[in-house]
Amino acid sequence: MSNLEVFFNPRSVAIIGASEALKFGQTMTQYLLDSAFKTFPVNIAKEEIFGHKAYKNINEIEDDIELAIIVVKNEFVLQSVRDCLNKGVKGIIIESAGFSETGDEELSKIQQEIEEIIKQKDTRIIGPNCVGVTNFSNKFTTTEVNFNETIDGGKVSVIAQSGVLGNIFVDWAASQKIGLNKVVTLGNKIDVDEIDILDYLENDQETKVIVLYLEGVKRGKEFINRMKTMTKPVLIMKNGRSEIGSRAIKSHTGSIAGNDKIYDSLFQQLHKVYRVDNFYEMFNIANAFATQPLLKGKNIAVITSSGSLGALTCDLIDKWGLHLANLKSSTMEEIISIAPNWISARNPVDLGPSSLSTFRPSLKLLMNDPNVDGIINIFAVPKMPLQKFSIPISPQLREMKILSKEIKKPIITCVYGSRWVLDYFLKYSEKYSLSIMTQVDHAVKAYKMMHEFGNRGERR
Amino acid sequence: MSNLEVFFNPRSVAIIGASEALKFGQTMTQYLLDSAFKTFPVNIAKEEIFGHKAYKNINEIEDDIELAIIVVKNEFVLQSVRDCLNKGVKGIIIESAGFSETGDEELSKIQQEIEEIIKQKDTRIIGPNCVGVTNFSNKFTTTEVNFNETIDGGKVSVIAQSGVLGNIFVDWAASQKIGLNKVVTLGNKIDVDEIDILDYLENDQETKVIVLYLEGVKRGKEFINRMKTMTKPVLIMKNGRSEIGSRAIKSHTGSIAGNDKIYDSLFQQLHKVYRVDNFYEMFNIANAFATQPLLKGKNIAVITSSGSLGALTCDLIDKWGLHLANLKSSTMEEIISIAPNWISARNPVDLGPSSLSTFRPSLKLLMNDPNVDGIINIFAVPKMPLQKFSIPISPQLREMKILSKEIKKPIITCVYGSRWVLDYFLKYSEKYSLSIMTQVDHAVKAYKMMHEFGNRGERR
Repeated sequence: MSNLEVFFNPRSVAIIGASEALKFGQTMTQYLLDSAFKTFPVNIAKEEIFGHKAYKNINEIEDDIELAIIVVKNEFVLQSVRDCLNKGVKGIIIESAGFSETGDEELSKIQQEIEEIIKQKDTRIIGPNCVGVTNFSNKFTTTEVNFNETIDGGKVSVIAQSGVLGNIFVDWAASQKIGLNKVVTLGNKIDVDEIDILDYLENDQETKVIVLYLEGVKRGKEFINRMKTMTKPVLIMKNGRSEIGSRAIKSHTGSIAGNDKIYDSLFQQLHKVYRVDNFYEMFNIANAFATQPLLKGKNIAVITSSGSLGALTCDLIDKWGLHLANLKSSTMEEIISIAPNWISARNPVDLGPSSLSTFRPSLKLLMNDPNVDGIINIFAVPKMPLQKFSIPISPQLREMKILSKEIKKPIITCVYGSRWVLDYFLKYSEKYSLSIMTQVDHAVKAYKMMHEFGNRGERR
Repeated sequence: MSNLEVFFNPRSVAIIGASEALKFGQTMTQYLLDSAFKTFPVNIAKEEIFGHKAYKNINEIEDDIELAIIVVKNEFVLQSVRDCLNKGVKGIIIESAGFSETGDEELSKIQQEIEEIIKQKDTRIIGPNCVGVTNFSNKFTTTEVNFNETIDGGKVSVIAQSGVLGNIFVDWAASQKIGLNKVVTLGNKIDVDEIDILDYLENDQETKVIVLYLEGVKRGKEFINRMKTMTKPVLIMKNGRSEIGSRAIKSHTGSIAGNDKIYDSLFQQLHKVYRVDNFYEMFNIANAFATQPLLKGKNIAVITSSGSLGALTCDLIDKWGLHLANLKSSTMEEIISIAPNWISARNPVDLGPSSLSTFRPSLKLLMNDPNVDGIINIFAVPKMPLQKFSIPISPQLREMKILSKEIKKPIITCVYGSRWVLDYFLKYSEKYSLSIMTQVDHAVKAYKMMHEFGNRGERR
């Protein structure tokens, strides 16, 4: 078992700096104390916290403690770490900020001292300046997550450098019905870094796709080696492309961004690793990997209710080196036979306003066309008729799931227009394992990567 | 008065093909019949429509008719146009599809005939294969708009080629609280084209910014000349960058996309015209133009609750040739005096989780710093604390409005994370004239354009 397992599934937890006060850490303290995870609050000034006996020091706890979460002020962190080592904890998450990222000499020195004292120990540390981990499978978290709002059974795991961003990723994924599996925020990385977590997630049965938000790497060679041997798709977003961006990173998590061109050429050489441009793209593509079969060939069929967006998609298919599928003439003829005379059955199949009645049979024809490897479905129907006539879309969505499973070809749906329509799709996306996006750009890029991923694998 | 005024503010309207049946045009018919716009339904088979006397033919109507909307099947359109000319209408909107965009010879011929018969007349035609116009100022529409959901007092006007896309733009703008003024969809453009509408909107007092979704231009020289003399910002999205994209356009609105490189170099030479990459970017930037003062210099201050997103913004500022403002040392000192010791007061000003209490005074200091020309505010606060502690953001938002008005510098806010948080901001965006986006990419690009626009103007 990885010695990181303790961070994701601890048998006992101490919260050092636990508090009932309305401040950072309060929600997590209350959640863990109420949970099935055996949790002990530590607070030098309190007898009780949320009805549980509080301890002045972690060493006063009679039970063994596997994991300690430190949320005290920065000046008290060093002593808390010493206490933890004394207690023999296996993992420490330092959430407190105010160390080398400040550029302050005194504060940087504290961080160095912590680094020194754990060097000879087996204890692992995540942080400081982070919010640690969330495991959506067993609902363990060291941060503030409302599990009632998140998606169950997700397969996307996340490595983020900063705590805020980690939480923001969780919030956004929940809004977008993207299922996460594990989220780790690393902060200043005095011990555990992205390489350790990549190791862990590569061997994690529940993780299918990894997204990694990176500001800088300390162990460059090991990072490249780890990346070379990953067998799961890794989507990387890396900041610090510019000099001013690099300076900003330095004052954020104390990282050195490094020469961006080196990263770029590195990522291009790696087999299962893809660089992405922004975090929406990163999660949308990850969700396509997590929910859809891979794209075996390069031939894409576009089915759309908007000719304009269909044309835009063609531009992008060309840009990213994919092909617009040459539909079999029988496919086109059959589509024409079920649709009004003014629709365009050539790829893109532009059903226009007829799409609500002609979509399902057309989709089936496209999925069964051997010249088609994957489908982009552009749903651009105004809210008014959908709402007014209570037209149900769920049969379309169920059909997508059934066909995709049967025929083993991916479908990505891009929804344009009203938030109301998007929400209708998102309502069903979890149930039917759909890949729902709001931009065809992301869909085409996802297919590009899903095609490369499968084919790189085959070539070996 | 422009002879296009009849499309936006008609004194009398006939709907040819008006219907109570649940089909395209029904909602518009009901809306116009119930509205203050004097509307006459024309239907060969009905005595009454929604309680109003129906006419077998437009020529049976005793009153003068300024505008006719044609929604009959394609085969009946030519005769309907003849009837309209006979009646002496000033404007015709042909919404019916099924003409040259199909590639069908017979159907293309009908379109050509319509073109021929109106050549010698004063009557103007929009379409076919479109949904015509919506005027949000007087709430006149020839399409399906729920004005209860749209934003009042908007200043962004839209030219779209396709009907579906026009409706989708309206839906999306409403969801995003972006105020539109006029939306025109052009379809196959047998008469009125983008140049006519640009003329009209350039002289329209209510329009401040124009967004133009373009598939192809027929009158190339006139288009360039019109573009050269525009004094309002025009944001253009043009499809058909690739060969397959161009083919798709041909079967959509029958347009010829033309050589994309020519468009690219053309747009770069024009003074007030900017090419954008996707429609979210187009509307977000338009809304920044519509709601914020222009950016006078190139110096941007970034204020953020996420260091990662702050660093990302620096990369983009560098990429787009803007500058990260060098804050006055007094500004930084004063921010440090009000914030916890671990915040970074260098630009980007990274307030981290303290942002809820330190944002307002920090924003004021940045706005008053003469080294700062505009501000990007990155709001990345997780939902949990905001919701749990009912922390009100509206004082922040009001402050933004007051400062921006007083000091005449633009502020763009980028909200990351939960939909719930974004909706909180959007709730106030109309009231406080805010520019709210979900991507820093769009914010930086908006500033790039808002700076160029102002400075190109000054140089003249």
